[in-house]
Amino acid sequence: MNQIIETMLSHRSVRKYTGEVPTDEQIQLIVRAGQQAAFAAQLYSILLSRKTKHAFGAPLMFTICVDFHKMQQVMTKRDWQPISNDLSILLMGMQDAAYMTQNMILAAESMGIGSCLLGSAPYRAKQVAEQYSLPPKVFPMVQLVMGYPDEQRPPRPRYPLEFVLFEDKYPEMSDELVERAMRVMDEGYLAQDYYHRMNAKIKITQDRQDTSTYEDYSWCEHMCRKWGQWHESIDEILQQLGACGFDLAPGPNAKRYTPDT
Amino acid sequence: MNQIIETMLSHRSVRKYTGEVPTDEQIQLIVRAGQQAAFAAQLYSILLSRKTKHAFGAPLMFTICVDFHKMQQVMTKRDWQPISNDLSILLMGMQDAAYMTQNMILAAESMGIGSCLLGSAPYRAKQVAEQYSLPPKVFPMVQLVMGYPDEQRPPRPRYPLEFVLFEDKYPEMSDELVERAMRVMDEGYLAQDYYHRMNAKIKITQDRQDTSTYEDYSWCEHMCRKWGQWHESIDEILQQLGACGFDLAPGPNAKRYTPDT
Repeated sequence: MNQIIETMLSHRSVRKYTGEVPTDEQIQLIVRAGQQAAFAAQLYSILLSRKTKHAFGAPLMFTICVDFHKMQQVMTKRDWQPISNDLSILLMGMQDAAYMTQNMILAAESMGIGSCLLGSAPYRAKQVAEQYSLPPKVFPMVQLVMGYPDEQRPPRPRYPLEFVLFEDKYPEMSDELVERAMRVMDEGYLAQDYYHRMNAKIKITQDRQDTSTYEDYSWCEHMCRKWGQWHESIDEILQQLGACGFDLAPGPNAKRYTPDT
Repeated sequence: MNQIIETMLSHRSVRKYTGEVPTDEQIQLIVRAGQQAAFAAQLYSILLSRKTKHAFGAPLMFTICVDFHKMQQVMTKRDWQPISNDLSILLMGMQDAAYMTQNMILAAESMGIGSCLLGSAPYRAKQVAEQYSLPPKVFPMVQLVMGYPDEQRPPRPRYPLEFVLFEDKYPEMSDELVERAMRVMDEGYLAQDYYHRMNAKIKITQDRQDTSTYEDYSWCEHMCRKWGQWHESIDEILQQLGACGFDLAPGPNAKRYTPDT
């Protein structure tokens, strides 16, 4: 155990901020530390907004983008034309951007500055692109609000290690293991009164009765309501990507995957 | 500046390893620290391989996967059916997995253990899936070899901060800024004799003469040869995703993006 691992293990998202604003020097150091993350195609840009208060009263918001526009400019200067398909660019660029983001989160925490990721940007990418004048081939992957914490919360639970780390072969998961992993998550969130405190229950929109109360509504139920109700149509997100210049349509002779082939 | 930010700023990939093998306790601590990264849908699994030596003689290799299979099992236990489209799952799962991976890299470095990301897994996902018996809805995003460094290299250069961090509005990039960013990257890599030492020049396969030598072949040229020559067809990567149970085909009534609409 050391200071770095301790900082990682005590990470939690911050959803209440004081009015204090991190300095320019701190912001620059956080982004520089982010840039030094692994992978180095550097297919990203960061748009900072600090003119208004953001979610949870945070003074800063970073919009983290996959950016192939800059690479196009580099290539033009060298008299090259991009040829790679947009999905390959996205696979590399999202990793680049995410590795950087995690470093930013941790670098900030090392200075007592908290943050919270906001996941909705891909679903309103067109609007975000207009707001920040993003050129084509720049896709807002995620947003990160940041500031000084005005709350002290414990870290949220995670799956038991044996539900995450496997050796040599993906195991047949026993009922017992799945149920234990679910119990760890549910009991951990309930112990923190997490969803109740945030009033974050997701409505059931299907023909199905909502029998949960905040006495038992927890992580597994929350996940089921997300993945069981949200974002049914792929066209919604394909269109947002399209509006940002990323075309993921298969070629004319592509074979479509079917689970039985 | 503090120990965490210093560790981030001195990060470099390790491409030569001693025979020493990290202990079980170290491996578990690294993965636990990884799990505590931001976002918490936990759509990932890690397959560890340590029976053979891996790339660069590393004793450990982690295959980091986007994993929706476990979420399906959780949902089944709750009598829910997944409805979300596979691209939305991938957008969330890749971020989950990448945030975890960056923590793992840094946690290892805090204990003197080095690593190197390997980016080819998505392009041979079917084969990796067979090797590790991955069930459907598990996609190998990236691999990470790890061990004790048997080399001491300086960190590699990154773009100047003003080419990465923008405020309020994505700027019109001046020629001068683009050229300066290119110069920083090219001169930085040349000063380390990086591509020469690795003998890593990418062949030109187009009808175009290769006029570079290792005296001037550097980062910009390397990137141009990648993005200007590799992965032209999207079908290649769509098929690998398909083999892992992720179908990104648009719906029947989808409007395709064209740059002029």
